Amino acid sequence: MSRLGILLSGRGSNFEAIADSIEAGRLDAEIAIVISNSPRAKGLERARQRGLRAVCIPSKAMEREAYDRLVVAELREAEVELVCLAGFMRLLSAYFVEEFPQRILNIHPSLLPSFPGLEAQAQALEHGTKYTGCTVHFVDERLDAGPILIQKAVPVLDSDNEESLAARILEQEHVAYTEAIRLVLSGAYRIDGRRVVRTR
Amino acid sequence: MSRLGILLSGRGSNFEAIADSIEAGRLDAEIAIVISNSPRAKGLERARQRGLRAVCIPSKAMEREAYDRLVVAELREAEVELVCLAGFMRLLSAYFVEEFPQRILNIHPSLLPSFPGLEAQAQALEHGTKYTGCTVHFVDERLDAGPILIQKAVPVLDSDNEESLAARILEQEHVAYTEAIRLVLSGAYRIDGRRVVRTR
Repeated sequence: MSRLGILLSGRGSNFEAIADSIEAGRLDAEIAIVISNSPRAKGLERARQRGLRAVCIPSKAMEREAYDRLVVAELREAEVELVCLAGFMRLLSAYFVEEFPQRILNIHPSLLPSFPGLEAQAQALEHGTKYTGCTVHFVDERLDAGPILIQKAVPVLDSDNEESLAARILEQEHVAYTEAIRLVLSGAYRIDGRRVVRTR
Repeated sequence: MSRLGILLSGRGSNFEAIADSIEAGRLDAEIAIVISNSPRAKGLERARQRGLRAVCIPSKAMEREAYDRLVVAELREAEVELVCLAGFMRLLSAYFVEEFPQRILNIHPSLLPSFPGLEAQAQALEHGTKYTGCTVHFVDERLDAGPILIQKAVPVLDSDNEESLAARILEQEHVAYTEAIRLVLSGAYRIDGRRVVRTR
């Protein structure tokens, strides 16, 4: 059974979607540990309610790589094979990325490379784009930049505000993350340049 | 009957799609003039075959605004209300844009703001994006940057090469351009910031 490590900073709705997929048998894996850099993250509480190991490693005032060493040690101890970022509000150091080569995933609420960074939904609305969506990608040291595993396109409606658009994207995020984890765990892909191509 | 002016530099498949939409009664407009900056543009020949006024104004070695003055004069003489760029390989000057405020459209083979500029389909493939598409937008002096009227999302398949992807996008371009022209001619929209919103 593949062991997942989840990193989050807030409510972690994508963490819950992954946990639900596992419980429903849509994903053959287990969540070995949930780590938050913020003691107030709702996701920690939710993890405990689900009977999962939930650890807070506060990042406040810590240097990036020193912090990442603590997190990596915790992930190693939990024998994590695949790291899933679910609203983890920190860039990872090169050290962290090299410790889990092509074994760290993130989800972003836009069709990257459009609208990287914070408030992607508001960026899409302000830009006046008619489609946005979500992206699950491998993580490297750059912001929202690694090879793309799965994307879902979502229409922007004339009646949308930030909240309604974010909710429509979030539904697709929950589907996309499970698909992406399943693809990575299957090993049935190769990476050509930046392009992730299925091999069966 | 609204009078359209078409600017092109090559075969002008989007010009032909617009002409087909008019002939089929899907678009209540007429093409008053087709202008190319290149004497070898296949689109000029196609325009003549359709009995349309087709004019070549060579741009070679001409300063941008001096050239644009010639084109604007020709569009004025043809009493053009809406200018449609269909593979016109030049940036327009501020002068040109101000002569036709919110009356110049362009189509681009990506979901802008991703992949502006040349070879958008190859850019999308190289980036490994799972969705691309096309965008019809108002034209300003910047490259592929004005408010967006219509977008169509197109999946990128693992089996795609540049040719197959470009062909799948082109089908949607032909649909999108007619929709966008119809919307602009209807006047049933407003522009909030960068966002084009239908008013009925």
